[in-house]
Amino acid sequence: MPISKKVSTYLESASWIRKLFEAGNKMRQDGQGPVYDFSIGNPDLDPPPKFKEALKEVALDQRPGQHKYMANVGYLETRQAVATSLSKDFHLPFVPEQIIMTVGAGGAMNTALKALIDPGDEVIIVVPYFVEYKFYIENHGGVPVMAAATPGFDLDPDAIERKITENTRVVLINNPNNPTGVVYPQETIDQLGARLELHNKHRDRPIFLIDDAPYRKLVYDMDTCPSVFHAYPHALMGTSHSKDLGIPGERIGFLAISPQCVDWQRVAAAAAFTNRTLGFVNAPALMQRVVAKVQEELIDLEWYRRKRDRLVAALSRMGYNVPHPKGAFYIFPKAPGGDDIAFIEALQRMRVLAVPGTGFGMPGYFRISYCVNDDIIEGALPVFEKARKM
Amino acid sequence: MPISKKVSTYLESASWIRKLFEAGNKMRQDGQGPVYDFSIGNPDLDPPPKFKEALKEVALDQRPGQHKYMANVGYLETRQAVATSLSKDFHLPFVPEQIIMTVGAGGAMNTALKALIDPGDEVIIVVPYFVEYKFYIENHGGVPVMAAATPGFDLDPDAIERKITENTRVVLINNPNNPTGVVYPQETIDQLGARLELHNKHRDRPIFLIDDAPYRKLVYDMDTCPSVFHAYPHALMGTSHSKDLGIPGERIGFLAISPQCVDWQRVAAAAAFTNRTLGFVNAPALMQRVVAKVQEELIDLEWYRRKRDRLVAALSRMGYNVPHPKGAFYIFPKAPGGDDIAFIEALQRMRVLAVPGTGFGMPGYFRISYCVNDDIIEGALPVFEKARKM
Repeated sequence: MPISKKVSTYLESASWIRKLFEAGNKMRQDGQGPVYDFSIGNPDLDPPPKFKEALKEVALDQRPGQHKYMANVGYLETRQAVATSLSKDFHLPFVPEQIIMTVGAGGAMNTALKALIDPGDEVIIVVPYFVEYKFYIENHGGVPVMAAATPGFDLDPDAIERKITENTRVVLINNPNNPTGVVYPQETIDQLGARLELHNKHRDRPIFLIDDAPYRKLVYDMDTCPSVFHAYPHALMGTSHSKDLGIPGERIGFLAISPQCVDWQRVAAAAAFTNRTLGFVNAPALMQRVVAKVQEELIDLEWYRRKRDRLVAALSRMGYNVPHPKGAFYIFPKAPGGDDIAFIEALQRMRVLAVPGTGFGMPGYFRISYCVNDDIIEGALPVFEKARKM
Repeated sequence: MPISKKVSTYLESASWIRKLFEAGNKMRQDGQGPVYDFSIGNPDLDPPPKFKEALKEVALDQRPGQHKYMANVGYLETRQAVATSLSKDFHLPFVPEQIIMTVGAGGAMNTALKALIDPGDEVIIVVPYFVEYKFYIENHGGVPVMAAATPGFDLDPDAIERKITENTRVVLINNPNNPTGVVYPQETIDQLGARLELHNKHRDRPIFLIDDAPYRKLVYDMDTCPSVFHAYPHALMGTSHSKDLGIPGERIGFLAISPQCVDWQRVAAAAAFTNRTLGFVNAPALMQRVVAKVQEELIDLEWYRRKRDRLVAALSRMGYNVPHPKGAFYIFPKAPGGDDIAFIEALQRMRVLAVPGTGFGMPGYFRISYCVNDDIIEGALPVFEKARKM
């Protein structure tokens, strides 16, 4: 075997999501009719008109030097726009020096983890978890430690606290959550923050709380998404414009360090360094200039809300056990019969693609990603009904 | 100290290049007159007109779905354009499945190294080396092993061979070379390839030869840059359009796997996986579509050649020991007096920025990056003359 043994092992157990994505691609080309693909968070919704205007403006700008390297952390102008927007959202005085522009939220997570952990350090994540977290943590020699969510998929501060050891360096949460669509209430995040602060009293260096928050602006039935920044000082948020502007292929996001974080200047310097040395170097120049102009823009939330409501109502009527998620674009129902893999395979035979909960460390459930056009939803409903009864 | 201990150690000994870049930025704002900055490979030359046309065309394209995720390896259309171009350049039958679009050459290097090495594996690099290689290798638990170049900075196959152990997994070369500007002749690369093939006879898996080749189209006094693909079957090339199109801030490049590489399908699958799980996910969508249209375009090589000729002639007249580099946009002369750091500090006091050879593992030399406007060169020549005599 010519490749890395570790990567070879990973490949054997590779992400269900992408496997299904590729399967979906193949199915699409087989000429056997439509494919109802709910397997991946790749929005069918186009970016808002103001994004397109900003892109046009930036692309037609003829001033020289627009595609050069800038500082590894990104353009000052972009970081200023982000800091201004975050200050408004979180009522905290963010400055550009606390913002590192990154290659999406995936870039932000790796930049932050590499900056904070040493080999052997433990990073607590919550089950069910986003499939990539184990890779992200192990990339930098970290050890993923799993803590259960509550039965309703809320954060469970008790469960997290039980997993804290002297090697714990980071607690990584994902709010709004992928795969459940749950939005953690501020109260629960506050409780987690309070527990961490108690632990810090007996430690040389604080535990960091990282929020992976690419869906933070995709919340329904509430005004704003609850935040780690109000709950705990030593907090970082990684996010991207993949979902709020609908541009995941462009790889533009940022890492924000709380103004209240211990020695945030040092954390920012470390992240600037790791953003560079992990090979990102800097977030794409052109998109940095575009997003600086549209920090307050948002894709059509109603487009998502309607789909959520339609799907939750229809699946509930069919007898699925469906929670009513308040964020992101995921639904995480119980798999009828209890065997999520068998259930997903049955759906796939009827040309409906979804992801088994096993992929997120949570067998017995399955994930529906509803960022798809209405005809996909309407076409799949009869299949979901049929599968329910099998 | 709140951050990773390892990163903290790195920060203490951080890259001279970026330190000087920041120093240059500060100097620029001090109002004390012009700064002559030769410290970083950030071309002042704008992209070719056809790049700008292609960018305009792509940015104004109103078809839906243009900013979505694509397969992690990139758009098929882009990989096809790259494969066609490489097939022509190297007279080898590249197919799109051998191309992974990456976040620049830095992304390509990390994607390739992570795909190929396990912790403890050794990667041989040539001294003087590009400053980031040690970080790139150590990111994935690899051990950098240094092999000397010849006195004229050519590859030294003997020196490399002496460093091969049973743990050697990769030989990483950089052609044309940063910091020396040397272009390795095909003959030397062929010799290296032949040595590696002899070693492979006694090994379970072959040693990989990776060429970091972002400057491959910036060669003077020759038609094309010599290549690893002609010298050795198990070869990969990482490159970017940062230099040939003059767009380093956009982070667009690719990794190409030789059609003759052992089990290239497996290597490609591993690289697709690591490109995703390192957090790059995919190369920026919009720039992928742009570069697909301009694979045969090139910035104005004459712009660089004139600067090289002017600088080499002027510095030689002043008594500097200057080789005559055939590629990239670097000159690597001996530091007068022998103490490169003292010499660079003296230059800096006269507002000329360059990088001491110590930063590349080669004390006693210094690097001039001549991708700057003519007024920078002309303004700095008197300073170089004065420093020569100090």
